[in-house]
Amino acid sequence: MTEVSFDIFIKQNGKTILSPLYVSLLQEIEKSGSLRIATKRLGISYQHLWQLVKEINISAKEPLIIKKRGGVGGGGAILSQYGKILLNEYSIIEKQIIKFQNQLNTEINL
Amino acid sequence: MTEVSFDIFIKQNGKTILSPLYVSLLQEIEKSGSLRIATKRLGISYQHLWQLVKEINISAKEPLIIKKRGGVGGGGAILSQYGKILLNEYSIIEKQIIKFQNQLNTEINL
Repeated sequence: MTEVSFDIFIKQNGKTILSPLYVSLLQEIEKSGSLRIATKRLGISYQHLWQLVKEINISAKEPLIIKKRGGVGGGGAILSQYGKILLNEYSIIEKQIIKFQNQLNTEINL
Repeated sequence: MTEVSFDIFIKQNGKTILSPLYVSLLQEIEKSGSLRIATKRLGISYQHLWQLVKEINISAKEPLIIKKRGGVGGGGAILSQYGKILLNEYSIIEKQIIKFQNQLNTEINL
């Protein structure tokens, strides 16, 4: 069985603002708000996570992630309004891409 | 300016047979037949190149690259018949994807 798949990237002024890894991070933050849980789910270190948050926030035209002060749970973060809009738009685009991908896969002959 | 782009992957029975790097390698081999030139163009070492050739040839249902004995030019390689078919089919798929991508980019609002 031969199948086509895609890694999706969204760039703003040449800078990557959404990659598969960035999307996973934003989705985890949206779901749990806990950075500790996000590191576990993504299998990355805290240091790597902070690096990603920094990269994402300076790449997009507005920050996507807002950090919250640490507490018992090791600190948290939420999506900014623009982060929510972006992730929502991404879901819409992703649906179109999956539809296109499914159609391509019915035509592929390899 | 916000733009969507894709990295394209083609899998056969769950194994990646075409990735952006694999495609670049196959295209270089098709163009020059020289592995030395391919390493330079891709910015990889000979060792890395041979690793890629091995990976590609065991992943697809038939080998895509046929090695030729070394000579003055440091040995060469050509695409197998199946390699040529695959690369040609990839170009057709890529064109459809670029068309789809351009359409998405006219609709994106971020």
